[in-house]
Amino acid sequence: MYTIGIDVGGTNLKAGLVNEAYEIVATSKMPLTWQSQEKLAEDLAFLAEDVIAQKGIGKEEVASVGIGFPGAVDRRRGSVIHTVNIPIREMPVAQMLQKWWDVPVFLGNDADCAALGEFYHYGSGDIESFILVTLGTGIGTGIIIHGHIWSGHNGCGGEGGHMVIVHDGDLCTCGRRGCWERYASASALIRQTRAAMETNRESAMWSMTGNNLECVSGRTAFQAMDAGDAAAKAVVDQYIRYLSDGLVNLINLLQPDVVCLGGGVSHEREENLLLPVRSRVREISYDRLMGVPSTTIITAKLGNDAGIIGAALLGR
Amino acid sequence: MYTIGIDVGGTNLKAGLVNEAYEIVATSKMPLTWQSQEKLAEDLAFLAEDVIAQKGIGKEEVASVGIGFPGAVDRRRGSVIHTVNIPIREMPVAQMLQKWWDVPVFLGNDADCAALGEFYHYGSGDIESFILVTLGTGIGTGIIIHGHIWSGHNGCGGEGGHMVIVHDGDLCTCGRRGCWERYASASALIRQTRAAMETNRESAMWSMTGNNLECVSGRTAFQAMDAGDAAAKAVVDQYIRYLSDGLVNLINLLQPDVVCLGGGVSHEREENLLLPVRSRVREISYDRLMGVPSTTIITAKLGNDAGIIGAALLGR
Repeated sequence: MYTIGIDVGGTNLKAGLVNEAYEIVATSKMPLTWQSQEKLAEDLAFLAEDVIAQKGIGKEEVASVGIGFPGAVDRRRGSVIHTVNIPIREMPVAQMLQKWWDVPVFLGNDADCAALGEFYHYGSGDIESFILVTLGTGIGTGIIIHGHIWSGHNGCGGEGGHMVIVHDGDLCTCGRRGCWERYASASALIRQTRAAMETNRESAMWSMTGNNLECVSGRTAFQAMDAGDAAAKAVVDQYIRYLSDGLVNLINLLQPDVVCLGGGVSHEREENLLLPVRSRVREISYDRLMGVPSTTIITAKLGNDAGIIGAALLGR
Repeated sequence: MYTIGIDVGGTNLKAGLVNEAYEIVATSKMPLTWQSQEKLAEDLAFLAEDVIAQKGIGKEEVASVGIGFPGAVDRRRGSVIHTVNIPIREMPVAQMLQKWWDVPVFLGNDADCAALGEFYHYGSGDIESFILVTLGTGIGTGIIIHGHIWSGHNGCGGEGGHMVIVHDGDLCTCGRRGCWERYASASALIRQTRAAMETNRESAMWSMTGNNLECVSGRTAFQAMDAGDAAAKAVVDQYIRYLSDGLVNLINLLQPDVVCLGGGVSHEREENLLLPVRSRVREISYDRLMGVPSTTIITAKLGNDAGIIGAALLGR
């Protein structure tokens, strides 16, 4: 049997047909042009039909359809409550899809779906808890407990990016001050890199970006550090500390078996990111005082496919 | 049937016989004078025998014995891994007690046991998740998920007091800087009260404490605020903000059904603590952006009995 996973993004809808080895065997994609909930349901149904058509299989070979949305969902009712970049409010998705698809339909938050995908890819085994921390525009934290997504009583848990780590710090999009994602997301790293360039006119980061602050990326400071630039190294060191602060908050609270770092920043060389993060976390996490094993910190492996694979696994 | 709960504190061992309505019907207590693991096991066995003797019942009416320790336990093996104020290391408590008690023996962390007690007292019903936040010398956070204590893969989770909320803030006993408990525990409130008195020599807090900083308690600022003292009100307002910062971190991450405030500070009048905390949390928690129900915030009801009752419930 197959399952279908669909990732609803702010700009695209992406579907994948997933086999029992958690591999994507066919994909389909279309831009999201918001018209109405009815049109979105129709598009979702079409994408699901497209991936089975590509593989030449019938609907009877599909066990379930799972869909990840950027927002809060009510998994029991199969409804989307509220999404962030798309104006969906109280959309009974599972019920609407029954018009085309007479299979169970499961919903999840997109970051949570990605976590589920990475969790299965890691090899769930006897892992009780797994957190995917995605370093992107913000920070997403998808929490898997006993093999299931944890999203709290109201479907909108897992917003670890909105833990305050700097009391009265920078204003966040959520309205709080000092949220973790203001300091440790990819966007935060870019802001920190630009600020360091402004105060270090001699830094190699200027030549690396063609003297253009607009060309700064999440890689700039790492690359300049590799070239021996001291200002860049200071940016990276401070970024590792901010990142570790939030990671240790998660770890001290939940002591998950595994924390998995995802998003573009997580692709940095181990020596530049994963190893210093592990070292800093070990230095300050509570478990070191108790002489017990520490949380395993790894980097994500599925990339952009995690959300599709995780959505497809929602029914497992 | 009854169950027995024992709370192992830094200074005392306290046992209670608990009935099926989760009520303590007999208690026994002795000072903890550390000699050896053997002696501790013997004392625990004695206390358990003492509470059934008081009630005049036999061991056959006791379904299980549960014990809460101030540290990390391995619940599967029934062993204490490490405790904080007592030098217990790798003590196979369940096995040792079999010499006297041929019933199942369950272990838990003391703060987690208190959370379990408050959870059952609240009326577990269809509550999926419950967090007890105890404001004492430090801040303990006992997490109940699906009716069970969550202590992570290594038994030492639930250390929410050691979430950083002030990057590079005050040094904590755990070695990190800026932990929540450095700003929102009862001890922190006392420090903040004293600091405000030092800079406000005219404050009513001085006369209320007999001009003696040693007499400042967690109640001083609240009482002086009630008497109209502006410096005291500023202390309380800032304390509510620190407390809410950590509460919203927990809520944004886990969206538990219920957060329960315990410890001495939680006994303050609703108007002074619970209501302003609820209001501040509602102002900044992520769920408000999604139009979904919020976490219910309540105060603890069992006081010092929570640990005994929760330990007795470990086997349920």
